[in-house]
Amino acid sequence: MASSECAFCRVVAGELPSTVIAEEERAIAFMDVLPATEGHLLVVPRTHTRDLLSAEPADLAACVLLAQRMARLLRDRLGASGVNLVQSSGAAAWQTVFHLYLHVVPRYPGDPCRLPWIPSHGDPAKIAAAAARLTSDEPLT
Amino acid sequence: MASSECAFCRVVAGELPSTVIAEEERAIAFMDVLPATEGHLLVVPRTHTRDLLSAEPADLAACVLLAQRMARLLRDRLGASGVNLVQSSGAAAWQTVFHLYLHVVPRYPGDPCRLPWIPSHGDPAKIAAAAARLTSDEPLT
Ligand SMILES: [Zn+2]
Ligand SMILES: [Zn+2]
Repeated sequence: MASSECAFCRVVAGELPSTVIAEEERAIAFMDVLPATEGHLLVVPRTHTRDLLSAEPADLAACVLLAQRMARLLRDRLGASGVNLVQSSGAAAWQTVFHLYLHVVPRYPGDPCRLPWIPSHGDPAKIAAAAARLTSDEPLT
Repeated sequence: MASSECAFCRVVAGELPSTVIAEEERAIAFMDVLPATEGHLLVVPRTHTRDLLSAEPADLAACVLLAQRMARLLRDRLGASGVNLVQSSGAAAWQTVFHLYLHVVPRYPGDPCRLPWIPSHGDPAKIAAAAARLTSDEPLT
């Protein structure tokens, strides 16, 4: 994809203004302009790829390791008491820019984030049925 | 940590029942018994580590690459139209078992998951101030 067609390729290329916090060989971290909490960052690979499913292993590993470094920085510099990583692949999963990104969300006591689901015990038979489909030897249709 | 003290070490050791979907050298994937959606998995490293911040790079990379493989499996076998990864480090970030885990949440149109924050433009001055603290050369106090 030409960089001009993708907002995050344009950030990587310096064509869109952004506040970059860290730059590495394969990935960069910059401030999210729609922050959930103070210090919310995005980590993206330099090379365009759509999402988790399409990513090259080396880019994916580089992103998660940069996210780890940013999590430690958020703890050390902003006093975050926890960190969430959130990755969204596909419009059904809240992906809004179709260039792989990882949210690195520092967490503070009493902040406004809410867990995206309500944990409750699943029906064991339904879980077993899903597991059977996931581990089936049947050819993919 | 002795495996008997950590629920996920016990899952890795086969001492707690679980429905394992994939086993690799450094990481395993198993069904979450509190599923957000059909097919919700957890990926954990075999070796005990508390969270994202404490993880060995090789374990972290292995977990995200196994999560990628699971995301593709959820698409191919269960027809997921999207996938979220969610990692929780620290009680303030919803961590409930203190052995690193990655949620792999398949997404479907109309499912009950909700974004954990409401995206809205942050105050540029506050974002710049947080960035300045993150990139400061000041020694950590
Ligand atoms: Zn791009
Ligand atoms: Zn453990």
